[in-house]
Amino acid sequence: MSITSRAFHLVSRPVGEPTQDNFELVTSTLPDPGEGEIAVRNLAISVDPYMRGRMRDVPSYAPPWKLGEPAQGGAVGEVIASGSDRVPVGSLVVHNFGWRDYAVLPAEQASVVPRRDDIPATVYLGALGMPGRTAYVGLFRTARFRPGDIVFVSAAAGAVGSMVGQLARLSGAKQVIGSAGSADKINYLRDRLGFDAVFNYHDGAAAELLAEAAPDGIDVFFDNVGGEQLEAAIGWMNLGGRIAICGAISGYNASQPQPGPRNLPLFIGKRLTMTGFLVGDHGDIAQEFTDRVGAWYAEGKIVAEETIVHGLEQTPAAFIGMLRGENTGKMIISLD
Amino acid sequence: MSITSRAFHLVSRPVGEPTQDNFELVTSTLPDPGEGEIAVRNLAISVDPYMRGRMRDVPSYAPPWKLGEPAQGGAVGEVIASGSDRVPVGSLVVHNFGWRDYAVLPAEQASVVPRRDDIPATVYLGALGMPGRTAYVGLFRTARFRPGDIVFVSAAAGAVGSMVGQLARLSGAKQVIGSAGSADKINYLRDRLGFDAVFNYHDGAAAELLAEAAPDGIDVFFDNVGGEQLEAAIGWMNLGGRIAICGAISGYNASQPQPGPRNLPLFIGKRLTMTGFLVGDHGDIAQEFTDRVGAWYAEGKIVAEETIVHGLEQTPAAFIGMLRGENTGKMIISLD
Repeated sequence: MSITSRAFHLVSRPVGEPTQDNFELVTSTLPDPGEGEIAVRNLAISVDPYMRGRMRDVPSYAPPWKLGEPAQGGAVGEVIASGSDRVPVGSLVVHNFGWRDYAVLPAEQASVVPRRDDIPATVYLGALGMPGRTAYVGLFRTARFRPGDIVFVSAAAGAVGSMVGQLARLSGAKQVIGSAGSADKINYLRDRLGFDAVFNYHDGAAAELLAEAAPDGIDVFFDNVGGEQLEAAIGWMNLGGRIAICGAISGYNASQPQPGPRNLPLFIGKRLTMTGFLVGDHGDIAQEFTDRVGAWYAEGKIVAEETIVHGLEQTPAAFIGMLRGENTGKMIISLD
Repeated sequence: MSITSRAFHLVSRPVGEPTQDNFELVTSTLPDPGEGEIAVRNLAISVDPYMRGRMRDVPSYAPPWKLGEPAQGGAVGEVIASGSDRVPVGSLVVHNFGWRDYAVLPAEQASVVPRRDDIPATVYLGALGMPGRTAYVGLFRTARFRPGDIVFVSAAAGAVGSMVGQLARLSGAKQVIGSAGSADKINYLRDRLGFDAVFNYHDGAAAELLAEAAPDGIDVFFDNVGGEQLEAAIGWMNLGGRIAICGAISGYNASQPQPGPRNLPLFIGKRLTMTGFLVGDHGDIAQEFTDRVGAWYAEGKIVAEETIVHGLEQTPAAFIGMLRGENTGKMIISLD
């Protein structure tokens, strides 16, 4: 058997917003999987905000993508050839060899997930995958959510944000507030996800919009955005409020560092705490997450909205669009 | 008995730096202490950075000083008349009726401290008082100091900062770094307090000065200053670093909010945490603090440097000078 793979390579690093020209689709022939390896046909590919950081050639928590090599990221696929007893042909696997249609990889780098008629494979890239787990860790561990808390999440219609809001609601939040960047997203948050209050951050000053949406202040802020909304949240936190810093997408395409919040001295009188986190540090939570959120999903209590584009060729455009906020819920590239 | 008291009243609120004109010395006759009250002759008065906040007419953790009424703050004095069995005449007490020479107050609002030849009364306003306890809470509770940590403290020659550095050194810090604003203070930190590395923040960019002083990064930052030094500290924190926000004196006299650090997205990759705190929330630590730090003081292991001015009339000038950084160690007004 001979596997022809097409993979997007990073060929240049962007200044500001990434462009299609930063990527090149390269065709190659893969070796058959050896002992302990598997060959996977990807069914769907994930593009996520953190990948913008991997385009930079600076040390960070995820190493930079290398020029002239395939980009990396989450994908779900089926095993078509296997040198591993643990991961037989036909298995459904989640792995990090995305941005391509076929991959050969060490079996130990793949997680086998259940094939079920009631769970689309793409859900393992979103609600039941890394973004969902990120929401779970940030809300329950980092922000130490307690029932009765008022929770605000920015980029609430994104893959992580939409899970934060739903997890908070299902766990006894007093009020869940979300912000997003379009009227459609605002409607989606309110009508499909059950947010108590929502605002479009384009509609005015974030501080005023937040104050109107959350008349009793906020106890937890789950920050995906940074910038003006972070400053607004600090200004509107209640005593003892907790901020989980998950992302700062408002600045990801900026070539200069963005100004920080001018109201940090409020941390003292309000006894605020702000903590950055990475889901990868919390591998021990995987079973708890799968059990708890998997059960809610099976009971139909979780909406796992996706924005799906079709065809490997669309991957860079989907990535660029996701950074612009063109997705509602998880941005997925379907290869089916 | 009739007690004549002279007290500084706040008569106007400053824009920018406070001036002498914001205060007026008012003479009045106090009533004799009633049941449960005491009359105190103040021996020494404390002026502290947080008082700048009390000059503003905005809600904060300490209520604003009222116009036309005596200013408030820490003082130590001796009881000259008493309607309380618990606090007899001759007791040495710490209380919050400063900015005046005599006061009549409820005995329950006074803490009796030991009269000892080897502990000057003023130490209860500094190393063994509120500033020392603030250092203790912020270092051990808020920043969760662990032996082996590298600790950086700004405004290190102040009443709180000088205790932070000494407590960290006595508790097994790997390295203690301090910043201050004059060559004299830098020498004092290095030669008298035993800091491992020091820098004068006027000597260049804080980020470069800190990197030079702390080649292995920092694990704990005790922030008394905010502004540029906070940004530098965030940039130089090690993985899992902890920031305790105690004060932000760099902006206290500003009439406009100061720009915030531009590098908050580093919180994510470095898994940083930043927490604001108030010593007043931690009353349960008082005995532990007194036992532990009192023992170090008695063993001669704590330097309790003071900048002393003499005479009640000097109180506003001492306060204004303290905000300018004219003190080394605790700023004290002696009434003896």
